[in-house]
Amino acid sequence: MMAQALRLAERAAYTTKPNPMVGCVIAQGEEVVGEGWHQRKGGPHAEVFALQAAGERARGATAYVTLEPCAHTGNTGPCADALIAAGVAHVVAAMRDPFPQVNGAGFDKLRAAGIAVRHGLMEAQARHLNRGFLSRIERGRPWLRIKLATSIDGRTAMASGDSKWISGDAARGDVHRWRARSGAILTGSGTVLADDPHLTVRFDEPTEFVAPLRVVLDPGLATVTRGHVREGAAPTLYLHAADAKPPRDLSAQHAAVPMRDGKLDLDAVLKLLAEREINEVQVEAGATLAGAFLCAGLVDELLLYVAPVLLGERARPLFEGLCIDEMAQRLRLRIVETRRIGDDVRVLLQPDAAA
Amino acid sequence: MMAQALRLAERAAYTTKPNPMVGCVIAQGEEVVGEGWHQRKGGPHAEVFALQAAGERARGATAYVTLEPCAHTGNTGPCADALIAAGVAHVVAAMRDPFPQVNGAGFDKLRAAGIAVRHGLMEAQARHLNRGFLSRIERGRPWLRIKLATSIDGRTAMASGDSKWISGDAARGDVHRWRARSGAILTGSGTVLADDPHLTVRFDEPTEFVAPLRVVLDPGLATVTRGHVREGAAPTLYLHAADAKPPRDLSAQHAAVPMRDGKLDLDAVLKLLAEREINEVQVEAGATLAGAFLCAGLVDELLLYVAPVLLGERARPLFEGLCIDEMAQRLRLRIVETRRIGDDVRVLLQPDAAA
Repeated sequence: MMAQALRLAERAAYTTKPNPMVGCVIAQGEEVVGEGWHQRKGGPHAEVFALQAAGERARGATAYVTLEPCAHTGNTGPCADALIAAGVAHVVAAMRDPFPQVNGAGFDKLRAAGIAVRHGLMEAQARHLNRGFLSRIERGRPWLRIKLATSIDGRTAMASGDSKWISGDAARGDVHRWRARSGAILTGSGTVLADDPHLTVRFDEPTEFVAPLRVVLDPGLATVTRGHVREGAAPTLYLHAADAKPPRDLSAQHAAVPMRDGKLDLDAVLKLLAEREINEVQVEAGATLAGAFLCAGLVDELLLYVAPVLLGERARPLFEGLCIDEMAQRLRLRIVETRRIGDDVRVLLQPDAAA
Repeated sequence: MMAQALRLAERAAYTTKPNPMVGCVIAQGEEVVGEGWHQRKGGPHAEVFALQAAGERARGATAYVTLEPCAHTGNTGPCADALIAAGVAHVVAAMRDPFPQVNGAGFDKLRAAGIAVRHGLMEAQARHLNRGFLSRIERGRPWLRIKLATSIDGRTAMASGDSKWISGDAARGDVHRWRARSGAILTGSGTVLADDPHLTVRFDEPTEFVAPLRVVLDPGLATVTRGHVREGAAPTLYLHAADAKPPRDLSAQHAAVPMRDGKLDLDAVLKLLAEREINEVQVEAGATLAGAFLCAGLVDELLLYVAPVLLGERARPLFEGLCIDEMAQRLRLRIVETRRIGDDVRVLLQPDAAA
């Protein structure tokens, strides 16, 4: 039941941000009597949809929810109240909601009404699903994913900068799914100048999504007048040094960020994005910026598309500036998932907490 | 039936060399009445074991064999004769045996005796299984596999040369299975000096195998007096320039090979190994020798153990000397298989014939 609730929750991966993904299954014993998921910010929560579907059969039932039911009135009424009113007997939640206005208050309200509450079922999976939301609420910064396309010998571009195309069509299509679940796509001014990317979400088939914010780190605002990154319906945000002067007619968003060692302070960048309710940031940049995030210990996830080609030792490395000289200094990761995508392999890695 | 015959054949991967792996299933309709596989050079062939097991039930049966039955008398009598004598009605072979003394003669002999013969069933799988044997017979050189352990950023060692250990225990154990199926493990004098490897097969559990020949490319015979590569029961062969003088008391094998551009001629090296009945060569060397084989177009297979670590841009590349400057010059491969081995991923690649 909880696995199904998690699958339901994930259906809103592209549309629910900045809210968490939540799914709910209402069951009478083995029989599912109602299902629902939170589809978009401002819309009804998962429990409301599931209770509607269950109708009278919610009475005495068990509700499986992937996140603690809310206890406060936001855009919608408290879900805890709705579960109580429907006469649900048991609530099983995957995890507590760390959001300050919930954070156990939902469970308390249910228990006070005589509902038996358990939580912690499939918590790891629920945390993985909402790792962006949880990072923003618990750490005050978005979950940071670096996406890179690499050859099997760990190269992202020729020495000339040419990187079109290392990975195949299928991999390049898959990237758009990861962009769609991100709150922001972040790049550097160097990539804007060299590759002129759109950084938009483009699907082959009509798919609903909330367009991620395009963020360009551009200390001197050298690239504001140009590039595909300014085109299309998605918003664009330039982050720059305090002494840079935005052109008077700049239609894009812009904000100043403190400098550190001659570069934009990456901690400050992420704090600013969290304040703008960005849950997940996908970095699509060159080896220098990717390396800087890695050295700063700010990378939560590495999304690698490994193509079965060799570019040779003159080509550009995956990361620059790692400054590793001894085996003991190596950066340990762990493989979360590997999957064939067309002719390539997609590898999702996270820093190894045990290392 | 043929899939089972292929599985039986593979059981002798470590013991049958330099002979091909062959499996045989004898069936009456859906019922298997006999199974066998060729276990070692000089021993009975697969068909003989399977016919023994089938006994009288071989009469009128279908024999599924992964390779054309032999028609000549080697260490054992011709299998075609044994199948005829047993009264087998149909023979289905995965492929013709290109070995000069067979090469269709087995099929002819069976047909002449009134047996219905078909071949080509699961031929691709059968060719993959015996790619070493087929390479030696058809191309006059062994199948060449390069084994490398690499970080996710495509590095095989620190700048200092330190490479202990990039991959985990499970991956290092897995390497011994690939060594065991190889006829030779080849390295360069640089690796002998830097890493002092044993290049022997070591299994945790008692496993029968024919020890592969250890081959050291050492033009000046600078390393003959030292190293683990001289120890243990496995034979060692030094390949050197014609003008190098082997020490009078050198107990290891040695042979001169022509030079080309100041290095041992790699084509000549492989020709010599084929003459010594080596089917598969596994190269376990540094980036320079690995790169030289690759540039010479002599690599048939790349066995990569990719560890989830980053060694940084100062570390040593996977291959040296590829001399690629433009995307159009990239070397295209195709992924044959990916598999998790402990914390690492094993990727088997082959040159992309379509590229």
